[in-house]
Amino acid sequence: MAGLIGLDWGTSSLRAYRLDADGAVAEVRARPWGIRQLPEGGFDAALAEVTAGWPALPRLACGMVGSRNGWHEVPYLDLPADAETLGRALHAFDAGDGSVLHLVPGLRNPRGPDVMRGEETQLFGALARDPSLAAHATFVLPGTHSKWASVRDGAVVDFSTAMTGELFALLRQHSILGAGTGEAVPDPEAFARGVIAARDSGAAGGMSRLFSARALMLDGALAPSAVPDYLSGLLLGEELRAQLASGRFRIDAPIQLIGDAALCARYRAAAVHFDLSFAEPLVDIVAGGLWQLAVTAGLVADPLVVAPKEARSC
Amino acid sequence: MAGLIGLDWGTSSLRAYRLDADGAVAEVRARPWGIRQLPEGGFDAALAEVTAGWPALPRLACGMVGSRNGWHEVPYLDLPADAETLGRALHAFDAGDGSVLHLVPGLRNPRGPDVMRGEETQLFGALARDPSLAAHATFVLPGTHSKWASVRDGAVVDFSTAMTGELFALLRQHSILGAGTGEAVPDPEAFARGVIAARDSGAAGGMSRLFSARALMLDGALAPSAVPDYLSGLLLGEELRAQLASGRFRIDAPIQLIGDAALCARYRAAAVHFDLSFAEPLVDIVAGGLWQLAVTAGLVADPLVVAPKEARSC
Repeated sequence: MAGLIGLDWGTSSLRAYRLDADGAVAEVRARPWGIRQLPEGGFDAALAEVTAGWPALPRLACGMVGSRNGWHEVPYLDLPADAETLGRALHAFDAGDGSVLHLVPGLRNPRGPDVMRGEETQLFGALARDPSLAAHATFVLPGTHSKWASVRDGAVVDFSTAMTGELFALLRQHSILGAGTGEAVPDPEAFARGVIAARDSGAAGGMSRLFSARALMLDGALAPSAVPDYLSGLLLGEELRAQLASGRFRIDAPIQLIGDAALCARYRAAAVHFDLSFAEPLVDIVAGGLWQLAVTAGLVADPLVVAPKEARSC
Repeated sequence: MAGLIGLDWGTSSLRAYRLDADGAVAEVRARPWGIRQLPEGGFDAALAEVTAGWPALPRLACGMVGSRNGWHEVPYLDLPADAETLGRALHAFDAGDGSVLHLVPGLRNPRGPDVMRGEETQLFGALARDPSLAAHATFVLPGTHSKWASVRDGAVVDFSTAMTGELFALLRQHSILGAGTGEAVPDPEAFARGVIAARDSGAAGGMSRLFSARALMLDGALAPSAVPDYLSGLLLGEELRAQLASGRFRIDAPIQLIGDAALCARYRAAAVHFDLSFAEPLVDIVAGGLWQLAVTAGLVADPLVVAPKEARSC
């Protein structure tokens, strides 16, 4: 029986995909077992449960499971990296019961330095989904640690992390800016106002405008319930301003969003104020990325190749 | 009996000063009764206890006690503001027992917008302490919400808030950057490295380098125990970079620090990397600021004026 078991194993969740011999997703299981909130029995038990009843197929996991605080640390692979180099660098380890689990290494950008772990698989999933992006594209993956990545000739050649999502959560929950704002009410106008404040912040940068969220509220110029959307706009706007100002991510090539639909919609709304157009997000591409890397590594046979490569140990 | 009771009443602490007829501090009492952590009996009880046994003198308070979440909200006074305009704007209210408490209004900068409450009194205390600064100076008041202020001809003409202290505490305590760093060890080299990373961050700004604190640690290029000092340097460096890049604060005039000695020492160390020299901090100037404003308002007689002004109600 051919196919693959793919695992997207992050900090707060675990998704398991059973892929058939053609790389199509036959079944998905989601569990709240991120590496920080494992069930009793830890990693072993989580893996056994989430794949219970599935056939004995090669297993490949990406994400924080391969980090220092994960199951088994896999060193980062330095840029530039295409699917070939990443596929050759898969890391196999004994998952405890004598069976092997393969892990995708994260990527390291010597510039910064910067690191990603999990997003690289999404990037190769995106390239597998839409090969036209491989020649030259900028990718934006919004999230807790938002990533901007530059792909050239099929290889990730640069990326940069903005801690937008984490900063927003911290400021909203723990800072003076979140105090007295009560229940947040969606307010597209306040969001746009925040985006524009960051865009027009000049050389000082948008973070220098952070306290305006408080001052505008005290002024009565911003409803308390609109402060979260203003702050969200300010932080997203600052992410866009800074990444564009860095000159590292070309905008004459397609800019492709990857990620959660609601969050990506906010980025598209923010991009308009920079006269940019972000393409509709690609979703559910991790399984395709895992499949792509498994094929490249020879873990599974490429259905498009008439004579399948022999599976090899990595 | 002449003199003044001055109160510096902030978010987390309360300091009471008994000033004699010459404005000299005769006695100081400190209590942990900021407006968010009052003793039983609230504001009334705190004021009664902290001034117990002191003579019935005019009482003047500055700080968050006059904020929306304080005892009695006093509207902000718009810039520009000198001691005269601020003294005229003192706000008197019935402190519950029929006696009057005077409050110093905070300042509002229409540019930003931005606000301060408490720091204005320190600024006028600084000008009273060193009148040579009144003509033209830049003031830096490090803290949870760090303030940069520009004084021209005795008036505060501009100021800007950087949330450096609060951001540092949030990132250190709650973010991924603080995870796994253990006990912080003072590391001047890591601090300097953070300052320089922010200084050299270009148009993107220092916040775009935030994640490097994590990547450098994972790289083994930064000891976990040095991450807090690197982060501190990065945030202080970004504050300096941004405020200088804004062009709002002239550096051809004296740059005067006000505040906690240890924190000011960090700012002086950071300033060196910008080829700037910050003057030794002025400390314990709030009482002098309260006295100055009380004199201006006619709450107390100016000992330098032969015929004292009549006290008036504000």
